[in-house]
Amino acid sequence: MIQYDPRGGFTLPGESGYEQLTLDLAKKWGADVIRDSDGTKLSPEILEAGYRIYSTICIIREHNAFAEAHPDSQQQTFLSSDAVVAEGDTLVIEPLKGYFDEQFALNDGPDALAYWEVWDRTANARVPRENWKYENGAITVTGCAPWHRYTASFLCYRIWEEINMYNHTTNHWTSEHLRQLDPRHPAAWAYLQKWLDDWCVANPNTSVVRLTSLFYNFVWIFGDDMRRRSRFVDWASYDFTVSPAALKAFEAEYGYALTAEDFIHQGKLQATHRPPTAHKRDYMDFIQRFVAEKARVLVDIIHRHGKQAYVFYDDSWVGMEPYGKYFSSIGFDGLIKCIFSGFECRLCAGADVPVHELRFHPYLFPVGLGGLPTFSEGGHPEKDAMDYWLHARRALVRQPVDRIGLGGYLHLTQGYPAFVDAIAGMADQFRQIKALHAHGAPATLNMRVAVLHTWGKLRSWTLSGHFHETDGNVLIHINEALSGLPVDVRFISFDDVLNGGLNGVNVLINAGRAGDAWSGGDVWNDPSLIAEITRFVAQGGHLIGVNEPSACEGGDTRLRLAHILGVDQDDGSYACHMPWTFETAEAPFPLYPRALGHKADLRLTDPDTRVLLAADGVPQMTLHAFGRGSAAYMSGFTYSPRAARMLYDLLRATTGADGAEASLADSTAVETAYFPADGYLVAMNNADERVSCRVALPGGSLDVTLAPLEMKIVKI
Amino acid sequence: MIQYDPRGGFTLPGESGYEQLTLDLAKKWGADVIRDSDGTKLSPEILEAGYRIYSTICIIREHNAFAEAHPDSQQQTFLSSDAVVAEGDTLVIEPLKGYFDEQFALNDGPDALAYWEVWDRTANARVPRENWKYENGAITVTGCAPWHRYTASFLCYRIWEEINMYNHTTNHWTSEHLRQLDPRHPAAWAYLQKWLDDWCVANPNTSVVRLTSLFYNFVWIFGDDMRRRSRFVDWASYDFTVSPAALKAFEAEYGYALTAEDFIHQGKLQATHRPPTAHKRDYMDFIQRFVAEKARVLVDIIHRHGKQAYVFYDDSWVGMEPYGKYFSSIGFDGLIKCIFSGFECRLCAGADVPVHELRFHPYLFPVGLGGLPTFSEGGHPEKDAMDYWLHARRALVRQPVDRIGLGGYLHLTQGYPAFVDAIAGMADQFRQIKALHAHGAPATLNMRVAVLHTWGKLRSWTLSGHFHETDGNVLIHINEALSGLPVDVRFISFDDVLNGGLNGVNVLINAGRAGDAWSGGDVWNDPSLIAEITRFVAQGGHLIGVNEPSACEGGDTRLRLAHILGVDQDDGSYACHMPWTFETAEAPFPLYPRALGHKADLRLTDPDTRVLLAADGVPQMTLHAFGRGSAAYMSGFTYSPRAARMLYDLLRATTGADGAEASLADSTAVETAYFPADGYLVAMNNADERVSCRVALPGGSLDVTLAPLEMKIVKI
Repeated sequence: MIQYDPRGGFTLPGESGYEQLTLDLAKKWGADVIRDSDGTKLSPEILEAGYRIYSTICIIREHNAFAEAHPDSQQQTFLSSDAVVAEGDTLVIEPLKGYFDEQFALNDGPDALAYWEVWDRTANARVPRENWKYENGAITVTGCAPWHRYTASFLCYRIWEEINMYNHTTNHWTSEHLRQLDPRHPAAWAYLQKWLDDWCVANPNTSVVRLTSLFYNFVWIFGDDMRRRSRFVDWASYDFTVSPAALKAFEAEYGYALTAEDFIHQGKLQATHRPPTAHKRDYMDFIQRFVAEKARVLVDIIHRHGKQAYVFYDDSWVGMEPYGKYFSSIGFDGLIKCIFSGFECRLCAGADVPVHELRFHPYLFPVGLGGLPTFSEGGHPEKDAMDYWLHARRALVRQPVDRIGLGGYLHLTQGYPAFVDAIAGMADQFRQIKALHAHGAPATLNMRVAVLHTWGKLRSWTLSGHFHETDGNVLIHINEALSGLPVDVRFISFDDVLNGGLNGVNVLINAGRAGDAWSGGDVWNDPSLIAEITRFVAQGGHLIGVNEPSACEGGDTRLRLAHILGVDQDDGSYACHMPWTFETAEAPFPLYPRALGHKADLRLTDPDTRVLLAADGVPQMTLHAFGRGSAAYMSGFTYSPRAARMLYDLLRATTGADGAEASLADSTAVETAYFPADGYLVAMNNADERVSCRVALPGGSLDVTLAPLEMKIVKI
Repeated sequence: MIQYDPRGGFTLPGESGYEQLTLDLAKKWGADVIRDSDGTKLSPEILEAGYRIYSTICIIREHNAFAEAHPDSQQQTFLSSDAVVAEGDTLVIEPLKGYFDEQFALNDGPDALAYWEVWDRTANARVPRENWKYENGAITVTGCAPWHRYTASFLCYRIWEEINMYNHTTNHWTSEHLRQLDPRHPAAWAYLQKWLDDWCVANPNTSVVRLTSLFYNFVWIFGDDMRRRSRFVDWASYDFTVSPAALKAFEAEYGYALTAEDFIHQGKLQATHRPPTAHKRDYMDFIQRFVAEKARVLVDIIHRHGKQAYVFYDDSWVGMEPYGKYFSSIGFDGLIKCIFSGFECRLCAGADVPVHELRFHPYLFPVGLGGLPTFSEGGHPEKDAMDYWLHARRALVRQPVDRIGLGGYLHLTQGYPAFVDAIAGMADQFRQIKALHAHGAPATLNMRVAVLHTWGKLRSWTLSGHFHETDGNVLIHINEALSGLPVDVRFISFDDVLNGGLNGVNVLINAGRAGDAWSGGDVWNDPSLIAEITRFVAQGGHLIGVNEPSACEGGDTRLRLAHILGVDQDDGSYACHMPWTFETAEAPFPLYPRALGHKADLRLTDPDTRVLLAADGVPQMTLHAFGRGSAAYMSGFTYSPRAARMLYDLLRATTGADGAEASLADSTAVETAYFPADGYLVAMNNADERVSCRVALPGGSLDVTLAPLEMKIVKI
């Protein structure tokens, strides 16, 4: 067994009124830090018990008095009305009809009204300004084309901070609705700086100010009809950053004006899963710089008081993406990421910041995010915790973080001793894993994998939200699998490819649905992109395409890399063209068909494409030699540890890598890592049953037997 | 029972050497006409037995000596080479590599070479003529962009008539390969006219010259690799009509030149299932006029000899579509359609020609078109015949034809007495149905249904080929269902809609896949089309959309009629937009879920859309009120008699029609028709089991019991 300190690196949520419980669990879990949470306080007895103290601040919230006095300092957004059909020359649009009136209030001030627009959505044309007028909350449009559909785009204030709104409407909170200030408003910004300064003075016991992110929440739009309460949720959208002031500042800097349509986008908004327009790219950079500049000021205030500034990366985090260009300029002392999954561990671990901390789930709350019970009747928090830990463990073995912790109401753990024990066990495993990394990284295959999508490095590992919020996108399943594999992983954009980004890459992965940001959409109309990837593979690189990689209208193949992949997607344009017949080839590794998709529209472009798996006569997983390199295709990919193993086997088969150099179990249920500096092997059983297996190692092998879900560390 | 003549209206395929069999079956089946077939002859004993005689002629085939002497009179086509990847500045393309060298020979004469092109398919750009040269059967391209893909488009002669090629390669024929002449070649055209004239003189017993269509076969392209012997099959393509002479004539008339790319279309060709370019529309009209003019000359020759000219509508029928603008100008005396399905009966019955005749299946041949045995070991020709008859019967009850018949080798019926009896029974039912129509049409709902697609009237009822050749397209299932329903059916184009085509229409149907000719593709970017259909429904019309109706990129909804349908398709652009939740509504008629599709990408656009059926939480069949009209949506539609009944019920539910006015059985297995002039009810049991049901009639009802598959005629 490995030597490690059984204490430290653990942040405990304390709770006033439960002082003894707080101190008992701090001891049991080996905590060195105690924190408060949204809704809990720390009493002097806790604050002075010798632990470091994190204090949570949501900087833009809980300033209702200021917001009441300065309503124009509240945050805003563009919205589009639902469409109204013209039955004649004239129609009336009630802009906010269908939206939740406790969340939004029209901003019909002159600065805002100048940005309002009316659109003929049937003709996809803006209606001339002289053809509509706004009065008493309604827009009257004249000169309509009969039977066309019209919408209005408008600015409104968001009068209820969305996380508070969520907690009220989901958990039946009854307290005052909290509002949120926009730091772009000069008076609000002056107020917030002073407020933070005062706060630091008033909280001398706080070692770390734990900023519940920064200024702008992810976008969450509620409707008034309970058949669709939540109309729109985008965990990385920039729509909530907008205001007339922001638009004017943008225009002054960029020399062109953004319009409502840059945001509304035919009513679809510009969701993060879709490729952005050039205007949106400019706007994002503009906001990222603003957020970083303002955040730097807050961090400086915190530092002046001798405290550290950690940022909790969730909720109001838009513009401060940890892999963004300006993140490190903010000067945070730590990054705290709440996690359900391995990819989130890697996201946190790889960020350029001194301290990396994970907040585990479940949150100590009666119900979980999905509305299912956790610490209440019917809940099994210890099982939930173990599920998440299995995702995290394999990622932490690849790349460590500094700290872990929990959040919420500590008293809820009473009556759940299995949960208390489970956390103690995880904390113990976490500290062992940290110790493994102490003298050097685990061995990896000499394989650099680049995941290619629209956002590149900015959205490394994550697509936007947590796994379960984005699991309709195949890429998050790929990322989750990669998070625990012994390969080097980077995230590159299409621009990167055109600027030498494939240098040093062994395997390029493109995984997404036609038209989305992950597959790439219209970027595939660029022949230089296709040529560069063709060169890359022809000269010995490898390509893995998943679902609808490189799919784009306008070419002679739907998948623009079809000639490399050896498969194409029939979007109907192959009408009357007979597909190649084929026989299924023997797979060079064990397949796991449940991980794949079931697409009906695939066909071979080359009879020599090797079909490893077909469904109803349609290829679902293939290998194809191309030049000195090769390609693999999978119709889909659903994460599980078993699926991750198949991806790893595919990576090895594609590139010809053996696996022993990084250690490799002959059971698909077991993942291993080999730490050459100290000669330790760690073996993790992902199955809920006992497994015996042989692990290939550099120059030998080792037999290992693991209890269900066990992690075992062996000195070689 | 109804009075009818038990003899007549039947065309029997005679066979030399089987004279007694021929005359016996002529008597048993009540034939009044005897015909020859491809591969059979009629002996004098048959020719002089007192029957009218049809003689089959394939006008452009069986002139090998002339073709040898005039190789440039052979028909041609454009082909595209497979793509070649440039590894450097230069590459070589072998144009015909991958094609069947017994079907094609390069036309590299100067007239043809002028139309050859080389394309950079990666950049989607034509390569300048000075960058490639053709020598010794190969094209050398210089100045290539490295890693781009290049193709060559070229003209070639078709040196093996495709139906003959099919019979050789499928049925192991070993006779001389037949060639085919292009009537556009002046010498060939003069030769063909004289040949026909001579033929008429030499065949005095022939009453009817049965033209196995005319000049240009549907497009069938073979490859040299048996893993994809048949590369491309389009039953209505115009590609085989092309030649340098045709292209020059077109340019002279239209004032612009067609290029290879007008045909090659990125290598996909312009399949009939896809919307045509404007150039292709011009070219089709050009060819249709040419075909009609030349055909008229042939018909005149036949008439001069006192014979009639019937045309068999299959194989070389391109340009003579019976619903084309020029068909009736040809002056055919009859149209013979070989049929498997009800829609083909309606296609034939509705054509503007004096005599309508159906040639039933199975063809008297050892194997059927699909390669399965018919008149050979393992075959059940009586079952096949009954299957096809059940499709035809319901259509014939709606609209009659004049004649039916068979084709092939009569001697093969020996040993299949059940088949002989089955045909006798069908001929009997056919004659009863004809008698029903004698005094007037059956009652219908007062409902005019318009099927809307790209081709409109030109492709009434058929998409291109037979049912089984086009059954991947949902519309053929709809057409087959409509062929037996008591409603008025017409086929209209998008242009028709813009020119008052919806006047008098009660229900508009659009059924197809995104981008295909049946759904419509880019035509839906025309706001006037959307506005006109919106008007139509708002003012009381009804819309039925199936699969991906009105689907088109570029709008704020994927289905451009989503606002009418109450459902839309999520092509990914709804990312982050939550769908409306819904509860399934009670259906106003019995559902038949197996007939529907199973689409995962549908969502409501209106919470008041009534979902009749959902699968995995996704709506598959809906009703939606819109203005004074309404819409229905079905995710798919697979034909069966039961599915046809559901479509009929949907039509009635949508429009509020009762059904009794046309007669309506309360069993979904039974279809009925009411002939008011003579007061006959015909009831057809589509089920293979005994059914008792009550039939609602104008002013009353009637109980009917039917044996399995029975048709019963009752005098009211």
